[in-house]
Amino acid sequence: MEEKIQVGTFLKQLQDNICTEIQRADGKAEFTEDKWSRPGGGGGRSRVIQNGAVIEKGGVNYSSVFGKLPPNIQKGLNLEQETEFFATGLSIVMHPKNPFVPIIHMNVRYFELDNGTKWFGGGIDLTPHYIDTEQAKFFHTSLKSVCDKHHLSFYPDFKKLADDYFFIPHRNETRGVGGIFFDRLSPDAEFSFQQRFDFIKGIGELFAPLYTHFMNNNSKTPFTNDNRQWQLIRRGRYVEFNLVYDKGTKFGLETNGRIESILMSLPPVANWPYDFSIEKNSQEEQTLSLLKKDIDWLN
Amino acid sequence: MEEKIQVGTFLKQLQDNICTEIQRADGKAEFTEDKWSRPGGGGGRSRVIQNGAVIEKGGVNYSSVFGKLPPNIQKGLNLEQETEFFATGLSIVMHPKNPFVPIIHMNVRYFELDNGTKWFGGGIDLTPHYIDTEQAKFFHTSLKSVCDKHHLSFYPDFKKLADDYFFIPHRNETRGVGGIFFDRLSPDAEFSFQQRFDFIKGIGELFAPLYTHFMNNNSKTPFTNDNRQWQLIRRGRYVEFNLVYDKGTKFGLETNGRIESILMSLPPVANWPYDFSIEKNSQEEQTLSLLKKDIDWLN
Repeated sequence: MEEKIQVGTFLKQLQDNICTEIQRADGKAEFTEDKWSRPGGGGGRSRVIQNGAVIEKGGVNYSSVFGKLPPNIQKGLNLEQETEFFATGLSIVMHPKNPFVPIIHMNVRYFELDNGTKWFGGGIDLTPHYIDTEQAKFFHTSLKSVCDKHHLSFYPDFKKLADDYFFIPHRNETRGVGGIFFDRLSPDAEFSFQQRFDFIKGIGELFAPLYTHFMNNNSKTPFTNDNRQWQLIRRGRYVEFNLVYDKGTKFGLETNGRIESILMSLPPVANWPYDFSIEKNSQEEQTLSLLKKDIDWLN
Repeated sequence: MEEKIQVGTFLKQLQDNICTEIQRADGKAEFTEDKWSRPGGGGGRSRVIQNGAVIEKGGVNYSSVFGKLPPNIQKGLNLEQETEFFATGLSIVMHPKNPFVPIIHMNVRYFELDNGTKWFGGGIDLTPHYIDTEQAKFFHTSLKSVCDKHHLSFYPDFKKLADDYFFIPHRNETRGVGGIFFDRLSPDAEFSFQQRFDFIKGIGELFAPLYTHFMNNNSKTPFTNDNRQWQLIRRGRYVEFNLVYDKGTKFGLETNGRIESILMSLPPVANWPYDFSIEKNSQEEQTLSLLKKDIDWLN
C-alpha cells in the first residue's frame, strides 16, 4: 500500500476508535458526521459531539486533501516550481462541561510533495482550567513513555517545542500544561518511514485512553458557579490562542478551508469580563502561577 | 497650544462627555476608570461599564503615548532613521444586553512623527445582531451629514473603506452594516490641520447622540432566548474579526499594549455552537443576507 494511503487509512481508523471511546465515556451524546469535499481535491469527515454528559463541545476531524500546492504555501516553502501535494491529518479538541476536566487538543498529520518531501507533524497538549500537578504528571509521563520507545531525545525536545508553541505572548501565559509538539519529521538515516509512522501511531493511540481517564476521573467532581466562571475565562484564552497564534487555524482561514471544521476548536461559550481579579491563595491563582514554560511536570 | 496637545485635550473631553451620556442613557451602571502608564512614555485612561441596564460591557479608552518609534513600526513605515512619535486616540466598543440594540465601535486617533508627518485616522461602524434597514439608514445618514460638511467625497470614499475594512473573509460576511473608515488624513493643500481636526471633532461628537438614540429606542424591545442565542453567535463573529483581522488589536498585541484595554472590545460572553443552522425566512436569515459589502443604506 502506498505510504500516504497507509497513513490516511490509519488516521481514519483512529478517528473511528477515538469517537467510539469518547462517546462511551460520555455516555449521553453521540458524534454527528459531516462529510465535505475540497474543490481542489480531497475532503474530510468532521465529527462533532455537543451537549454531552461530559463533553460540552468536541470535534474529531479527519481530512485528506491533495492537488496543486497553493501559491502562498509554495512561496512559504521557498519552492521555485509548482508542485502537487498530499496532506492528511486528524485534529481533535474537547471542551468538557466540568471545569475540573481539562481541555485537550491533539493533531497528527502527514504531508507529501511530489519532489519527495515527506513530513509527519503533530502534537498533543492539555489545558486544565485548574492545574492539578498530579494530573499534569500523569499526562506528561504518558507522553514520555510513548516518546521513549522511539528515541530518548523525543520527549525533552518535543516537550520544549510544545512549551514554545502553546504560549500566549500577550498574556505571558502558556495555554495550559503543554505536552509535545513536533513538525517536519522526515524519514532519514536514523528513522525509516515506518519508524516515523510508528511514532505517530503511538501518539495517536494514546489519545483515547489518556483523555477518557480524565473524563472518567474528573467529570463527577462538584463545582461552583465561580469555577464555571473561571472555566469560561480560560476558554476565552483558548480562543485568543487559536485565533491569534495557532498556525493550523491561520492556515485554514487563509486557504479557505471548511470554516466550521477549522473553528470547531473554539469553545461553545467563552467569557471576557474586564480586568477579572483573582483572590490571593486561590486555586485560580495557583493555576496562573503554573502557566509557565519550562516546568518539569515529571517530578 | 501645540497641535498634539489640542487633539489630546479634545479627546479627553470627548471621553468625559461620551461616558456621561452613555451612563445617563444606561441609568444603572457607572464607568470605572483605570489609569495606566506606558514604560516608553505616555499612558491612558480606560473606562469600562459592565452589567448595566442597557450595556452589558463597554469601554471608552483614551490614550496618549509617545517616545521612540518601535522598530517594527519604523520598518512598516519604511523609515530609515530612528524617530520619535506621538499618538493619541479614543477607542469605544459597546456590547449591549438586548440583542436588538446594535454593537457599536468608534476610534479616532492622531499620529505625529518628528519628521513632520501628521495623520488623523479613525472610523465608526455599527454591528446590529439583527439588521433593521431603517436604523442602518439613520446611522449612515447621520455619518453622511457630518462628512458632507467637510467634503462631498468623504462619505462615499470612507463608506467604501469601511466596507472593505470591517469584513470577515473566512465568513464572507461584513461585520455589520459598516459605517466610515479613514486613515492617514494629513494637512495638505486642500485641508489645513484645523480642517482635518474639525472633521475628527464632528465624527467624535456624533457618537453620543447617535448611540444613545439606539440605546433609548431599542433597549425595551422584548427578546426571546433564541434572540439571545443569536446575539451570542454574532458576538463570536465580532471576536473573530477583532482577533484575526483588526489592525488596532494586532498593533496593541504586538507592541505589548495594556492587554485589558486592548481586549476590552471583546464581548462579555460569546458562543460558537457547531454549524448553527438558521431557519428559512427568519430574521436571522434576513440579517445574514444583508452582511454584504456595497449596500447603499441611504435609500
